[in-house]
Amino acid sequence: MSFEQRIDEYTERVQRKLDASLPSESESPELLHEAMRYAVFNGGKRIRPLLVYAAGECVGAPLDHLDAPAAAIEYIHAFSLVHDDLPAMDDDDLRRGKPTVHRQFDEATAILAADALQPLAFALLADASAVDAEIRCALVRLLAESAGSIGMTGGQAIDLDAEGRSLGPEQIEHMYALKTGALIYASVMSACLLAPDLAADRAAALDAFARSIGVAFQIKDDLLDVEGETEIIGKPAGSDEALAKSTYPAALGIEASRARCDELLAAGLARLDVFGESADSLRWLARYIVERGK
Amino acid sequence: MSFEQRIDEYTERVQRKLDASLPSESESPELLHEAMRYAVFNGGKRIRPLLVYAAGECVGAPLDHLDAPAAAIEYIHAFSLVHDDLPAMDDDDLRRGKPTVHRQFDEATAILAADALQPLAFALLADASAVDAEIRCALVRLLAESAGSIGMTGGQAIDLDAEGRSLGPEQIEHMYALKTGALIYASVMSACLLAPDLAADRAAALDAFARSIGVAFQIKDDLLDVEGETEIIGKPAGSDEALAKSTYPAALGIEASRARCDELLAAGLARLDVFGESADSLRWLARYIVERGK
Repeated sequence: MSFEQRIDEYTERVQRKLDASLPSESESPELLHEAMRYAVFNGGKRIRPLLVYAAGECVGAPLDHLDAPAAAIEYIHAFSLVHDDLPAMDDDDLRRGKPTVHRQFDEATAILAADALQPLAFALLADASAVDAEIRCALVRLLAESAGSIGMTGGQAIDLDAEGRSLGPEQIEHMYALKTGALIYASVMSACLLAPDLAADRAAALDAFARSIGVAFQIKDDLLDVEGETEIIGKPAGSDEALAKSTYPAALGIEASRARCDELLAAGLARLDVFGESADSLRWLARYIVERGK
Repeated sequence: MSFEQRIDEYTERVQRKLDASLPSESESPELLHEAMRYAVFNGGKRIRPLLVYAAGECVGAPLDHLDAPAAAIEYIHAFSLVHDDLPAMDDDDLRRGKPTVHRQFDEATAILAADALQPLAFALLADASAVDAEIRCALVRLLAESAGSIGMTGGQAIDLDAEGRSLGPEQIEHMYALKTGALIYASVMSACLLAPDLAADRAAALDAFARSIGVAFQIKDDLLDVEGETEIIGKPAGSDEALAKSTYPAALGIEASRARCDELLAAGLARLDVFGESADSLRWLARYIVERGK
């Protein structure tokens, strides 16, 4: 069975894990739990969880050990989207064609719902009792670093700080490596932590693969934002440009951005050669990330 | 040496731990790190860390094992203050006489700085390599639950939801048990987790102590808010009343609130009898919490 055929199975796995670990909307505080579920079940494609499962195939990690990091990373991603959409940040009214959390509820509820998704992520990792406790601690550390000030949140801060200024391509790639790349990295490397016998050179290959794909992912997002139509990406096209953000397409143009994206994909794929067929799923996902929406 | 004499020592311990685990202001992203440090080094009295150390004395936990939970809980507390002060929440301009984080920086930076303090807390716990990994995982779970939607953040959501409505005393105490009590509980029970040989009845006694003191802490905060002057508590006196919040003093009056506070203190102290002199520090802190600022 190809990965394309298994995507539904993996997506269902992570949906079940998210559903089981999120408090019910009938549990107090009901409105907060409703907002948390709205934020998580938002029609997202679950690319990060899929990366966890695909990397898990590649390194031979036990399937049931992958559910906790898959869901935990998705919680961190979901929390970041809610805060990014706030009026004080990107001020977006729509995400994937639906009202953003602060539009559907209110700002305070959106802030708090996202705040409560973070600890849920770390609790899931710490609680995965089938996994060795030292590995659970390593998973917590990896995700915490990827989510924090020298990871995703730091990248977001650099992005906001750059509004109205123009960054060079290297600075933009550094920002992308943090704001988007950090969680992509955590997705792939969590699977590596769950395969403790993995050889160091194979872990290094996946490390390099994840870093390349993480940056390509964000360049592709920006390209979709420039090229896209509202109905395809679910938010008003060109909203980043309206904020005069420092993006790769704005700095280097669409053609150069596409070329850089393809280059990063090729570099990432080359690092997977050592894994043979066991990396077919990762290859499929890497191509999907760079070619989606075309 | 009495606990009162040791407070400076413990306060310095946690300050050192916070300082060592917070990224430097000279590390990128500089502005974010500056805001994180501003949020954490805000003149707070470090009551939660002091509770960790005092409970540690009580149960005989190794002193150096207490530093990580002491700092981690303070990070969660600091993050919650930054978000509580935001315009969409309590809209406070001052905290302890200084501009709140969104006033000193801007809203987006305040949101992100607080967002980045959460993972720092969990990383600290997971990273405390002197502590057994199973215990580190239990500390992560305890703090995650205390911080999340059925803990502190949930209590904050109930509080906001109650604005303009009037809750009964039991509902108010439930809200207090979450929004303030949850981190007090985590402070005391983290020390218990670090004393794995602790008898179950002693853990239960500290559990009950922590729950009583947590609610008393918030009633006392509300009393200070009603009675206080701006220069004592560092924010405009009566600001909660201005928002028509459901508070114990508003629902039951000042005298009844004082009586409930004293009753909770007495109930909490009674549970410490079994510990003899080893609980003197906890007794001192419990009394301080209820009698401060008078």
